[in-house]
Amino acid sequence: MEITVGRLSLYRRILNELSLRKIAHVYSHNLAAKAGITAAAVRRDMMVIGFSGSPSKGYNVDDLVRHISGLIDHPDGQKIALIGVGNLGRALISFFHGHRPKLTIEAAFDIDEGKVNRVVSGCRAYPLERLEAIIDEQGITAAVIAVPAAAAQDIARRLVKAGVTGILNFAPVPLQVPPDVYTEDIDITMAMEKVAYFTRQHHTKRGEA
Amino acid sequence: MEITVGRLSLYRRILNELSLRKIAHVYSHNLAAKAGITAAAVRRDMMVIGFSGSPSKGYNVDDLVRHISGLIDHPDGQKIALIGVGNLGRALISFFHGHRPKLTIEAAFDIDEGKVNRVVSGCRAYPLERLEAIIDEQGITAAVIAVPAAAAQDIARRLVKAGVTGILNFAPVPLQVPPDVYTEDIDITMAMEKVAYFTRQHHTKRGEA
Repeated sequence: MEITVGRLSLYRRILNELSLRKIAHVYSHNLAAKAGITAAAVRRDMMVIGFSGSPSKGYNVDDLVRHISGLIDHPDGQKIALIGVGNLGRALISFFHGHRPKLTIEAAFDIDEGKVNRVVSGCRAYPLERLEAIIDEQGITAAVIAVPAAAAQDIARRLVKAGVTGILNFAPVPLQVPPDVYTEDIDITMAMEKVAYFTRQHHTKRGEA
Repeated sequence: MEITVGRLSLYRRILNELSLRKIAHVYSHNLAAKAGITAAAVRRDMMVIGFSGSPSKGYNVDDLVRHISGLIDHPDGQKIALIGVGNLGRALISFFHGHRPKLTIEAAFDIDEGKVNRVVSGCRAYPLERLEAIIDEQGITAAVIAVPAAAAQDIARRLVKAGVTGILNFAPVPLQVPPDVYTEDIDITMAMEKVAYFTRQHHTKRGEA
């Protein structure tokens, strides 16, 4: 099911763009081409989520957006905490602010007193020592970690203890969490280093040829 | 080799932290535990890169950092272009600025005139129409795409035509590029939606129990 959630999220963004362009129906092979997968994979996913199209017109774009939203969005929205109000943390708050109404960063935390007790793009920033109290008060169950590597594991431990069961981790270290906690890692530096490495190989090869 | 480059990048960050804590040697099983992999995998990677440790003391931390840097860093540094000076783009410029001296965002581009012809965290922002000229002038071979989904493919096409062979793509669409161009995708919204979805499943299950 993990692959399908990621795909549903991708489908929805493609469909939202079609909808903005007033396109009412889409065929599986068109959706597949935009998603970079096969039409068979699209049809299998649609079967899994119980959505059917018309053989002559394809899938109804707006109906499919609603169907996917019903599956992946929390009906009341999902409250998210963010830890680490540095450059990346602030960018993430702005990025999610108003971008996806069902996914909002509700509270941010930092150890640096200069970064807290203020509002960043509509999100209140608190001192780190209030983490557990605010998570509990606001019923937060998901969190984003945007702290330096050395601090990430301790933050993860505190989040899990406070009741968080899903973590999006931007710190460049693997987190040790209990098996019932879901983590998703994004390592921007590693991704950039991979791109740089392959670019370098490419140009070395060109130079040799 | 792709997995190993990512791993080398991860090892280096772990080693840099050890070095800061004045730890001179590390055993494969300690490095493995920090990287979240097996000691056998660490030893295989070290064999692949031709680095050997001492059976009694383990690997020399600073020597291994230098060895890895020699493999993955461009000796003269890698010049990177960034397209899209929005919240995410600005955060990425600050994030790489001074963070990794060998990976610098040298030039940024945006279609919005209000965002260009100024310096953002040490990086000059240019109007998008100058993309090809600046890439050529500065010998840029890698790029970061941080534009909305609808604009990403056209930007990728222009980058490739201008000579860029590696792209880090934050736009939530798969890019169509020639087979000799390397792309790495980071989809922050999709990652957050996956975390939110699993958190929701978790709490539904708990509620049912």
